[in-house]
Amino acid sequence: MQKRATQEYYFYADKISPNEIILGKDEFHHITKVLKISTGTTITLTDGRGIIATANVQSIEKRHIEFSNINIERIPESLNKLHIAIAPTKNISRFEWFLEKATEIGVSEITPIICSHSERKQLRADRLEKILIAATKQSKKAWKPIFNPLISFNEFITGQNISGRYIAYLGAKSAHLKNLIHAKENLVLVGPEGGFSETEHQDALKQGYKTVSLGSNRLRTETAGVVSATIVAMHHE
Amino acid sequence: MQKRATQEYYFYADKISPNEIILGKDEFHHITKVLKISTGTTITLTDGRGIIATANVQSIEKRHIEFSNINIERIPESLNKLHIAIAPTKNISRFEWFLEKATEIGVSEITPIICSHSERKQLRADRLEKILIAATKQSKKAWKPIFNPLISFNEFITGQNISGRYIAYLGAKSAHLKNLIHAKENLVLVGPEGGFSETEHQDALKQGYKTVSLGSNRLRTETAGVVSATIVAMHHE
Repeated sequence: MQKRATQEYYFYADKISPNEIILGKDEFHHITKVLKISTGTTITLTDGRGIIATANVQSIEKRHIEFSNINIERIPESLNKLHIAIAPTKNISRFEWFLEKATEIGVSEITPIICSHSERKQLRADRLEKILIAATKQSKKAWKPIFNPLISFNEFITGQNISGRYIAYLGAKSAHLKNLIHAKENLVLVGPEGGFSETEHQDALKQGYKTVSLGSNRLRTETAGVVSATIVAMHHE
Repeated sequence: MQKRATQEYYFYADKISPNEIILGKDEFHHITKVLKISTGTTITLTDGRGIIATANVQSIEKRHIEFSNINIERIPESLNKLHIAIAPTKNISRFEWFLEKATEIGVSEITPIICSHSERKQLRADRLEKILIAATKQSKKAWKPIFNPLISFNEFITGQNISGRYIAYLGAKSAHLKNLIHAKENLVLVGPEGGFSETEHQDALKQGYKTVSLGSNRLRTETAGVVSATIVAMHHE
């Protein structure tokens, strides 16, 4: 039961410094109204950018908490970069599920892309950010994945210089992702329900992406995203 | 768009023989009322036990469909066995999500287990079976995972003779699952939210299970299930 208690007391802060912790409205509400944490309690917080802090709740005011004994630890970012660029699914809960699982598994960056077969062409970034924060807290990470703004496939693929660039494409027989993973830096493109178009595939090849397979199973978009993340993350374990 | 149409016309039958196809109530409804498939249409069906059939809708009666030109193909079962025994999550939708993803990724057998830290101790097997059928259809598989009745951890672990038996246990430093996978037959035990107890861990070791790690990330139960399935399935690709 001790494990549970610790878990509940891991929070997300917009900014953490040795003198001040800035909490978002949701986290303030969660600490003061939902969990009703009392003064004197020591809690743990992360800013999702490598800082983990412990702090003592000194007093709870109407709009802010005074903390004392702020102790900061900096966790270095993993050298293994895993960026997944993925077409948001028509059913948004499937995409939200992908964000949660990608965070747990340890993806460093996620970019939602609009492809020619995409059915969903807009996103509520604020809602998705909350899911990333919740998953970061739940899995007690010090680093929250970077979530980039929605961008068109063509605009996205031209701007990337990460070493291992891959496109999961169903239309061609190709090597399995697991056999092509780059030592440290990987970026995988995952298409929408209808897959990438042949034109998109060719455009990616011109930009130095390698075609990869995720195996013989037909995977939904969000499953392909999670499977890609798992393959790369396991390679780095 | 052709791809979509094909996908919609993949159905599940309780029984398929060269002379007769027996459809469940849900599938009958889906074909006749939801998709309103007209007579003369050729559809594809699976029984989830290795048969894929094409058949012509000859006539639609009040309670059954007459099929003609039933063509049967038998798909051999994979020699790579992957059995996941997993504690159902308190939030049932997380467990349902695991069932869907495990089917897509190609798990052959799933057993829900009750552990000492389990919060959920009952399941609606009929509802879960529908999820397995939907995922089998969606990923166009010929084999649906076997879904066993809920059983206690201790009763389960004594009855297994599969070669590669593993328990994902957090309390001990251990080899990564990816480095211990058996060539063909694997069974992975995944615990509930609170993890396996040390007693359960020891009991499993006595039954020949090996302790494995799924890496340095804290994974939720359902994520650990999907990650285990991915690691084993990818090994076999």
